[in-house]
Amino acid sequence: MTTTAPSEFDLDTAVRPAGPGVWAADLAAGWQVGGGLNGGYLLATVGTALREAMPGKPDPLAVSAHYLSASVPGPATVEVDVRRDGGSLATAAARLVQDRTTRIEVLATYGALPGGGEVWTTAVEPELPPRDRCVSGAVAPADLRRVAPLMDRFEMLFHPDQVGWAVGAPSGDGVISAWFRLPGREPDPLALLLAVDALPPVTFDLGRPGWAPTIELTAHLRAAPAPGWLKVRHATRTLVGGMFEEDCEVWDSADRLVAQSRQLARAPRG
Amino acid sequence: MTTTAPSEFDLDTAVRPAGPGVWAADLAAGWQVGGGLNGGYLLATVGTALREAMPGKPDPLAVSAHYLSASVPGPATVEVDVRRDGGSLATAAARLVQDRTTRIEVLATYGALPGGGEVWTTAVEPELPPRDRCVSGAVAPADLRRVAPLMDRFEMLFHPDQVGWAVGAPSGDGVISAWFRLPGREPDPLALLLAVDALPPVTFDLGRPGWAPTIELTAHLRAAPAPGWLKVRHATRTLVGGMFEEDCEVWDSADRLVAQSRQLARAPRG
Repeated sequence: MTTTAPSEFDLDTAVRPAGPGVWAADLAAGWQVGGGLNGGYLLATVGTALREAMPGKPDPLAVSAHYLSASVPGPATVEVDVRRDGGSLATAAARLVQDRTTRIEVLATYGALPGGGEVWTTAVEPELPPRDRCVSGAVAPADLRRVAPLMDRFEMLFHPDQVGWAVGAPSGDGVISAWFRLPGREPDPLALLLAVDALPPVTFDLGRPGWAPTIELTAHLRAAPAPGWLKVRHATRTLVGGMFEEDCEVWDSADRLVAQSRQLARAPRG
Repeated sequence: MTTTAPSEFDLDTAVRPAGPGVWAADLAAGWQVGGGLNGGYLLATVGTALREAMPGKPDPLAVSAHYLSASVPGPATVEVDVRRDGGSLATAAARLVQDRTTRIEVLATYGALPGGGEVWTTAVEPELPPRDRCVSGAVAPADLRRVAPLMDRFEMLFHPDQVGWAVGAPSGDGVISAWFRLPGREPDPLALLLAVDALPPVTFDLGRPGWAPTIELTAHLRAAPAPGWLKVRHATRTLVGGMFEEDCEVWDSADRLVAQSRQLARAPRG
């Protein structure tokens, strides 16, 4: 895949210096879903500013985000305060602000993702049929696509057994898996911050369509992704008190677990 | 169980007001393990100050902690800045500081844990034999107990199949489960913040004894625990680049999943 111009993702997550520890961003309307902008898109934008603020520590290793209010398209600032920088790791606090209202509070530890070396794992790659047997996000119901222009920003090919929610027949298992890629752009650590929160809420598979606002999401990146399609798996096991957890795994084309995340989110009304 | 005096845990996690948004703590030597104080103990201490700072939002729902430097016994301050308080949730940033050095940076969202109502779950309770067939932490090797006075702060009864590391025969599965309780004190949400990081590092079960410093830990609390023993299960699936994730589940005596956490930690040298 040859890229001759910045991708939409790169353009829309770009930040520019706007003062000491402050970066300016223009949040793009294309990443809207439900009542706000997609949380993964916002995390990738904050992650871009964090990378600028911590030279020599290029990769997000652990990023914790608490979502305080829904973001809207338009200008935003990312305020970064590096709290520690020494050895192989640096940690910073960041907040995404629009019109003096904080959207997201973030703590992030950056460093360098491993390029190889010892791997011990018992993790099992999600089973996904070949892409030509999966179901494109482009077949999602019209009322979903209308409130989720987000879905036009990337390619998603869903596991055919986990997309019954699109035709009113959710499996009830609480699992949604899909092939995922950005058009014209290979995955990198910042794209993984998007990927961990890009699929529809796993509550769709429980027969609860609707927006599921994230309360908190932490992503751990484990390796730099190889070029090619990603496999993304969302799963939940417990919904209680109107909240559910959504566990996400992202695997790359070299069959490696490259990111894990868990979020606590409010469940749509059933 | 009748408690007539504050427990050791309550005394050692106590904080007192020390200025606007500042609480003072005395970190107790009894919670040492390896090169510092136990991360769960520190999180419970920070969690106590956070509860004071957010009246009407009694329970930690999501707590994210990035560990910057090892804590030592003695005076500390917890600085809390409430970032949002409205509706049913409040979010604050906090840091634990000793001698002008930050030990932990925290973001926390507090609210009220559900006392009942709808529960949907597919989570499976960890299998643990009856307590009289489990192995007490009191039989840990002397060289472990010498560097871990922490182990005398609570009762731990290990799954007999997952304690081979204590006799030089780790299972290699990456799982450690145990019954857990604080002496003379019933579990509550603050005790859950301890419980998610109280067991030996799961890397012991991979044949890598030694200290495993936490880089980041996020805990999600899901329900207020019932009185009685807790079941705690730690598991890891992937060690790469010298880091591993440790997933923790805590179940209460009513067979409910009351807390989940994941940490990214540095692996001991193998």
